[in-house]
Amino acid sequence: MLLGEGPLSRVELARRTGLSQTAVTKAARPLLADGYLYELPPERTAPGAGRPVSPLAVSADREFFAGVKISADTLYGTVCDLRAAMRTSARRPLGERTPAAVCALLVELVEELLDSAPEFRDRTRHLGIAVSGDVDRPGGTVRYSVLPGWRDVPLAATVAVATGLHVTVENDVKALTAAEHWFGEGIGTDDFALVTIGAGIGSGIVVNGRLLAGAHGVAGELGHIAVDPAGPRCHCGAVGCVEAIASSGAVRDAVRAVTGRPELEFADVTALARGGDPAAREAFARAGRAIGVGIATLVNLVGPERVVVSGEGLDTYDLFGVHIRDAYAATAFGAAAACPLTLRPLAWEEWARGGAVAGIQALFP
Amino acid sequence: MLLGEGPLSRVELARRTGLSQTAVTKAARPLLADGYLYELPPERTAPGAGRPVSPLAVSADREFFAGVKISADTLYGTVCDLRAAMRTSARRPLGERTPAAVCALLVELVEELLDSAPEFRDRTRHLGIAVSGDVDRPGGTVRYSVLPGWRDVPLAATVAVATGLHVTVENDVKALTAAEHWFGEGIGTDDFALVTIGAGIGSGIVVNGRLLAGAHGVAGELGHIAVDPAGPRCHCGAVGCVEAIASSGAVRDAVRAVTGRPELEFADVTALARGGDPAAREAFARAGRAIGVGIATLVNLVGPERVVVSGEGLDTYDLFGVHIRDAYAATAFGAAAACPLTLRPLAWEEWARGGAVAGIQALFP
Ligand SMILES: [Zn+2]
Ligand SMILES: [Zn+2]
Repeated sequence: MLLGEGPLSRVELARRTGLSQTAVTKAARPLLADGYLYELPPERTAPGAGRPVSPLAVSADREFFAGVKISADTLYGTVCDLRAAMRTSARRPLGERTPAAVCALLVELVEELLDSAPEFRDRTRHLGIAVSGDVDRPGGTVRYSVLPGWRDVPLAATVAVATGLHVTVENDVKALTAAEHWFGEGIGTDDFALVTIGAGIGSGIVVNGRLLAGAHGVAGELGHIAVDPAGPRCHCGAVGCVEAIASSGAVRDAVRAVTGRPELEFADVTALARGGDPAAREAFARAGRAIGVGIATLVNLVGPERVVVSGEGLDTYDLFGVHIRDAYAATAFGAAAACPLTLRPLAWEEWARGGAVAGIQALFP
Repeated sequence: MLLGEGPLSRVELARRTGLSQTAVTKAARPLLADGYLYELPPERTAPGAGRPVSPLAVSADREFFAGVKISADTLYGTVCDLRAAMRTSARRPLGERTPAAVCALLVELVEELLDSAPEFRDRTRHLGIAVSGDVDRPGGTVRYSVLPGWRDVPLAATVAVATGLHVTVENDVKALTAAEHWFGEGIGTDDFALVTIGAGIGSGIVVNGRLLAGAHGVAGELGHIAVDPAGPRCHCGAVGCVEAIASSGAVRDAVRAVTGRPELEFADVTALARGGDPAAREAFARAGRAIGVGIATLVNLVGPERVVVSGEGLDTYDLFGVHIRDAYAATAFGAAAACPLTLRPLAWEEWARGGAVAGIQALFP
């Protein structure tokens, strides 16, 4: 709580957590001794409110956390402080994308980041890696990713040996959701969802303060809920998934098919739509409706307090935003329509920050 | 835990709950003193396993709980014991369906049930009422129900005054989900969902042992997730909701429209389908596909350990069961397909039992 919302007095912490004041004081003692927390100068909470209290604050520079996002073509890296503020960042284009090549480049990137300031090198013990696909966080392995040859890759162990850091591997959307929940739009909410749109479509769902993991290892798969039996077949095998209609690749493919121009790339399709081309505009409209229905589905089933929409797909929000909002409003059930959608454009580096937050959470589980 | 899984020793309870043995012993003491629990004769857990232990068991007859389900045309009532076993039941056809008329009949039914045995009359303090629609459980009111004139009805207060009982009002699907979670197929699972099919379609979702209520008061609305943009308009205003395609009324309406026979009732449509009529069979197939996609959507997003399917719609499972299962298997994402669907036919009286369980939960919150 102090990481996201501090500084707070012990009394206020006890009130907000439901813990006793004794428990708060006891929990704070070793953190004060180790320098993770410090006391602010005493202040009176109100005139005549009795003995002045010293709020507790996080020593942001006490420790640093490295984070890396592995995307389809680039490694994004960052070093964050204890409050998840990005202190430096860097990127490397991916050449070969085998596990061995990516691991080697990742280690190089992390070493470069840590070498950029002596305090990073001295006070970084944790690295978090965010990667799309099926990640076994406790086991530290990537079970499956779209990168070629990535099946059951023991990423955490390999990188830990090479860097000497504690390494946490997490699904990128889950890592970003946790970062938003602890340090962003989700602060103070118990029930919260983050939806990412772009080349892939996914979501992270927080219920009662905990990120859903799924009893069978699957949860938050907003990209693979079926919203149209007349829609295209998805790479997952099902028909009419949100991702099969609304990912940037799906929009591109739809326009290619309608116009008979297989050479069009997503940038061309975007330009066509902005120029008023009806086929391109309709493809974005259909994508927006699928995303809006998908978000409404999540809201009708799970009931979050708010939903944050992020991902590089926001770059074309001018083309489908109104369709997302209209479909959401038309499909949200009753009072669920009161759940606000917040747009949150995030630079790629913030996905790397998601990795760093997984490292912070590994230190304070 | 003892209610659903007992008898258990204090050691075993501590192990399963994660509480200390001291905490378990302390929590058990007043319940033993009040007669809710009793000790079974001591037994050795294994040869030479040291001091014999006395498992704790629930005194099922210590207290009774009345439950009533308000359906569209009938009141179903029951008296359950502390372990939610139904000890008697009764029903009353509804005449007038205004709040006042239903309350009067409900009170009459409860009095009749309590008069059926002296121990019911002596040892019943809680009544739970299960009703479909938008229920404010903490406030004890029915905000909205399909029954005519039911808007903001202070049902708990009215019935409490008339009966002298503590009254809990709960949405019927949520009450049934809680009953299954504590005393049925959901015992021992932390993440669990119950889906009901029939005249309405809904679901209750348990995450980390808690029933989702929704930050905006909406959750588990499986009937109102949109699965087909070419589907019929739903009474909720959206297009292509599961309920608009797959409720018994929707199947009837579809066959009426295709055959041009507005006099057909659901029983007629069922008979037609069983006789091989293609239009009727196709309407059930489409309903089954919508339900299967709806369940897969819930599973892909929330990741329950298992899903129980119930409701009077199971009576026509021969007509759409294979379509439910096929669509579920085709749409569940990856490992989510491992989440088993269990069919659980429930008599109407078991919905009343759901109400009684809401009463048990009111006593042991
Ligand atoms: Zn898919
Ligand atoms: Zn609807």
